[in-house]
Amino acid sequence: MNRTKYDIVGLGNAIVDVIARAEDDVLIRHGMHKGGMALIDETRANAIYDAMGPAIEVSGGSAANTIVGAASFGARAAFIGKVKNDELGRTFAHDIRASGVAFCTEAANEGPPTARCYILVTPDGQRTMNTYLGAAQDLRPEDVDAATVAGSAITYLEGYLWDPQSAKDAFVKAAKIAHEAGRQVALTLSDAFCVDRWRDEFLGLLRSRTVDLLFANEAELHSLYQTADFDTALRALRQDARLAVVTRSEKGCVVVSPDQTLAIRAYPVDRVVDTTGAGDLFASGFMVGLARGTDLAVAARLGALAAAEVIQHLGARPETSLMALAQENGLLR
Amino acid sequence: MNRTKYDIVGLGNAIVDVIARAEDDVLIRHGMHKGGMALIDETRANAIYDAMGPAIEVSGGSAANTIVGAASFGARAAFIGKVKNDELGRTFAHDIRASGVAFCTEAANEGPPTARCYILVTPDGQRTMNTYLGAAQDLRPEDVDAATVAGSAITYLEGYLWDPQSAKDAFVKAAKIAHEAGRQVALTLSDAFCVDRWRDEFLGLLRSRTVDLLFANEAELHSLYQTADFDTALRALRQDARLAVVTRSEKGCVVVSPDQTLAIRAYPVDRVVDTTGAGDLFASGFMVGLARGTDLAVAARLGALAAAEVIQHLGARPETSLMALAQENGLLR
Repeated sequence: MNRTKYDIVGLGNAIVDVIARAEDDVLIRHGMHKGGMALIDETRANAIYDAMGPAIEVSGGSAANTIVGAASFGARAAFIGKVKNDELGRTFAHDIRASGVAFCTEAANEGPPTARCYILVTPDGQRTMNTYLGAAQDLRPEDVDAATVAGSAITYLEGYLWDPQSAKDAFVKAAKIAHEAGRQVALTLSDAFCVDRWRDEFLGLLRSRTVDLLFANEAELHSLYQTADFDTALRALRQDARLAVVTRSEKGCVVVSPDQTLAIRAYPVDRVVDTTGAGDLFASGFMVGLARGTDLAVAARLGALAAAEVIQHLGARPETSLMALAQENGLLR
Repeated sequence: MNRTKYDIVGLGNAIVDVIARAEDDVLIRHGMHKGGMALIDETRANAIYDAMGPAIEVSGGSAANTIVGAASFGARAAFIGKVKNDELGRTFAHDIRASGVAFCTEAANEGPPTARCYILVTPDGQRTMNTYLGAAQDLRPEDVDAATVAGSAITYLEGYLWDPQSAKDAFVKAAKIAHEAGRQVALTLSDAFCVDRWRDEFLGLLRSRTVDLLFANEAELHSLYQTADFDTALRALRQDARLAVVTRSEKGCVVVSPDQTLAIRAYPVDRVVDTTGAGDLFASGFMVGLARGTDLAVAARLGALAAAEVIQHLGARPETSLMALAQENGLLR
């Protein structure tokens, strides 16, 4: 196999998060599923924004957060995703590049504006997301740079890409290039409702080994196998996946491979401020562990450490060096 | 005197802050005065943004922060300032209105974009600001709504307005309307370099009693009277001002009137994260105290309490209800 140029390349929706604190009754009044991600159109975006309190804007996007986290761990990282050439698009590009990530996808000059996700954070730290996809849904197969994907040890794809048809085509193209180059493909299921929309196709990706490594949280796993019983779902997952990690919030995570099941604890945190990005950052740490050749337990601990950092502040990108944090905790040298 | 519609109306630059952490050497490399505010043009704005790490965007502006703080204390508050009808302008308008502030200044449809302030926060929590004024400098006398100003118990003006000529004219018009309606006029000196640019005019505003209440920090006071000796400056201030407060960071503040000098302690904080907005929020609390008829000591404590809240997180707007905080601390009922 050729030497790699990147440890990880991520493909995902390029989104700027608009984050505000909210009481639970705001969610109820606007018919939101607490903890979920809903796709919204511009009219609903405006209605939600009008109902939101004062907000902060921070670059986000699930796979983008993961890639920024990987870079913070010192990994060589790249991102492919679509913004428009507008103020928010320039903000997204600035932030991801300033985080040390290679980002070269051409911005759209026409069409809808850069995507934004209106995130309501309730007093319990839980986040409820409303995504206006805008320019992100125009990610196309021609945006997938073959050299970048073929040169990356892992290609990381977010399940959310399955929603817009052209982004799905880009996803399939990237997976094909990666495997042809002898690389690994990872997928995050993203959201239980997203799994519900695309269950059979996601199962197909696993069973056809289009995906080598799967990330899911408990709700997504239960949605995938349509069962409320964790152990039943885990048994089914072991059949289907080459390697998978199921994250369970404060209960830690379970790493599953055909011949091994490994439970790893979560890192204790003083106060959960905002859970946005917990899953994204877990994936950063785990994949950095794989890229660095650590064993699965250390990889899972790196994931748990990154998740613990990101839930202690607003926003889904790390505010401290994850490399330094990993060194302080004796996980990386 | 007629009943008031607002407790406080603020006039100031309508700015969105772009905040990133930075090491001290970045400031040195880009020739910035640590702790200061520099006015920059678009070319320098782009160069600074390119050099900055990943950032968050939060609505800011000195007087705007003060007015949002006052609203958080439960005061009836209004703001006058100029944005453009662009993405950042809509963000600014959303955030200030969502904070409970009346904001009706018409956005510009032409001309430069909404103002932004690139803020570098060093590891000691100190902030260094670089302001691209954009649309904010186009605030004009016709933007000053006479009914709003005449109906406000206090009209609060930021010294930064003295930089653009048309904003200065708006400032003078607002002060005249306020006094003709028998209201109070307050001014913050904003920044030591700003004072250095406009020293004689600011002294003129005080001595002519165009300003009834002055806010300054130590550096601004020293710049105003061109002395390094605090007591000398304080004696001069007592001659010139009807009522003034000098804020001294962790040393608290000194309230000065012709017949009284009052020193009030700062509230202790666990960790200074970002000092942006400390002076702005002090002014919120102090003026809310005056509006509620508290004595000067309680007003100063309200100011100190609000300043302590805002320096414990990124961004210059309160993240918790200052009314609730004041009640918990026994300062307001």
